[in-house]
Amino acid sequence: MADHGGSLGRARSLFAHAPEPWVDLSTGINPHSYPLFDLPATALTRLPEPARARDLADVAAKAYGALSPRHVALAPGTQILLPQVFSLVKPGRAVVLGPTYAEHVRVAALAGHSVVETSDFSKLADADLAIVVNPNNPDGRIVPRSDLLALAEKLRRRGGLLVVDEAFMDVGPRRESLCGDVEQGGIVVLRSFGKFFGLAGVRLGFAIASPEIVERLDAGFGPWSVSGPALEYGVRALADTGWQGAMRGRLVSEAAHLDAMLAGHGVVVDGGTSLFRHLTSSDAADLFDVLGNAGILVRNFADRPHQLRFGLPGSESEWSRLEAALAVWSANRGGGVRAAASR
Amino acid sequence: MADHGGSLGRARSLFAHAPEPWVDLSTGINPHSYPLFDLPATALTRLPEPARARDLADVAAKAYGALSPRHVALAPGTQILLPQVFSLVKPGRAVVLGPTYAEHVRVAALAGHSVVETSDFSKLADADLAIVVNPNNPDGRIVPRSDLLALAEKLRRRGGLLVVDEAFMDVGPRRESLCGDVEQGGIVVLRSFGKFFGLAGVRLGFAIASPEIVERLDAGFGPWSVSGPALEYGVRALADTGWQGAMRGRLVSEAAHLDAMLAGHGVVVDGGTSLFRHLTSSDAADLFDVLGNAGILVRNFADRPHQLRFGLPGSESEWSRLEAALAVWSANRGGGVRAAASR
Repeated sequence: MADHGGSLGRARSLFAHAPEPWVDLSTGINPHSYPLFDLPATALTRLPEPARARDLADVAAKAYGALSPRHVALAPGTQILLPQVFSLVKPGRAVVLGPTYAEHVRVAALAGHSVVETSDFSKLADADLAIVVNPNNPDGRIVPRSDLLALAEKLRRRGGLLVVDEAFMDVGPRRESLCGDVEQGGIVVLRSFGKFFGLAGVRLGFAIASPEIVERLDAGFGPWSVSGPALEYGVRALADTGWQGAMRGRLVSEAAHLDAMLAGHGVVVDGGTSLFRHLTSSDAADLFDVLGNAGILVRNFADRPHQLRFGLPGSESEWSRLEAALAVWSANRGGGVRAAASR
Repeated sequence: MADHGGSLGRARSLFAHAPEPWVDLSTGINPHSYPLFDLPATALTRLPEPARARDLADVAAKAYGALSPRHVALAPGTQILLPQVFSLVKPGRAVVLGPTYAEHVRVAALAGHSVVETSDFSKLADADLAIVVNPNNPDGRIVPRSDLLALAEKLRRRGGLLVVDEAFMDVGPRRESLCGDVEQGGIVVLRSFGKFFGLAGVRLGFAIASPEIVERLDAGFGPWSVSGPALEYGVRALADTGWQGAMRGRLVSEAAHLDAMLAGHGVVVDGGTSLFRHLTSSDAADLFDVLGNAGILVRNFADRPHQLRFGLPGSESEWSRLEAALAVWSANRGGGVRAAASR
């Protein structure tokens, strides 16, 4: 299966002699998780209670700005929603605004679509299934809500579907979210729980859509698709607007700190969100290797060797190790240049 | 959505004045769960590690008698596997050996099949998709492995598929399991983690099939379909053959105790497994109501009013409440008969 970041097994096989523990900056998952709490035993032992799933749909609707809980389908992660959502329209022409998260292209093809990836937004208007990640991963590009609504209207007239993956909209410009615009159909918005709340192991995701589409998705997933732990964490964390507001501020500040640290070593960030930073550099492959040998995993891209994505370090010690590794890298690079010049 | 047992919300709406806490005997889930343990924080915070998923496939293959981990697809519960498994063959004629778990008929229809339920095993030979629950839920009927293999061979010749749901085979006659017989294709065996291990909230299930089918299922579920908690509980519990052996013995003994208690009140069990007992009685509806008003929920069946299914009580206090409620019920019933006779 393709690399997606977040696998320390892969990191260890790439950099066998790197010091442990690894500093994993290869994902866009918040290193400051929502506070862990003791689950009631029944969250593990009993079948998830339908009433608790309704509670979760209710708080999710409020948190994401959906019109009602009937506009919210629950799932054990956004990933597992993709084949179901991409099969809401008959196999046809899928157009993905890219470059972006690789799973959209893979799963759209699996669902029987012929798939094109394009960086030209205007080409999405011809699609049967148009897919936009907003804000985009890895570069943070934002498509304005008004452009997406105009696109959705064009697609809807022909029976097409717009899927907007708002996996990082918790830290995006939330006024551009389409969660409140799904009533007429033709739009499915995907929201991810694990990234912003730093609980990716829990597996929880949402599709925000018209009640008709939500019913179709629910019928496919059947009862009990979301685990007891996911229901409990989802209900508590999505209702905790205080934590969410404070965390948004903290992440903005830490992302700025990361940009400054990188800039101090001559690396210029050119995009991202406050959960990950994106850079383009002819030295990207070298930087990936130097960091990897120092036990710091960042995200590289097989088909775009000049780009890297950095998640946020999670502790003082992780920040220090990153700073130290960057210092070694920039000194060697600078030293090399100076040595050459002095000859 | 249809009733499936296990919902205390439904119990409370049916029997508003029943004493709390409820004694939930409406499922076949083991009331003695595998011992809970503290999860590492990373099981919640990090993306599930691919290497840990491979560990789980490995122990599951050994526990279930599959040929290798490549014959094991992981999923967040068996339920969510059904649409994927039933779509492995083109929409055609699905035949379900019934009466059985209602979701098979519902999901086979959702996958586009025309669905027939029959109690005549020989009629499954004409199917494109044949579905057998073995041991059956709710009556415990067993179809011998040799009959299933002969059926699978007939179906395979025509490109058909046999799905055997072995959700309760942990407490069944395991020599009848088809987990070791999937190599040639044409057979998918479903195994459920939550029932025998009493961890239904964790959401973990398996499809045992040929490596080719496993790859197709894995591609649809994508990476990270199984949560961190499910991986940790699955790896530990499925490897714990000591606990499993002891628990099998304990459940046999407790099921016998339940049969004796019911018989003492004139109720004859006519089937089941050691995780649930099945009975047929013209008094079933009355018994359901009397127990419900005493805060004891058993499973009834809308279309089979003379049948009930009892799960096992989980504690001395639950056994006592069941005994007391049965005593009230049988005294009233006996009293009514005697009173009529004495006139």
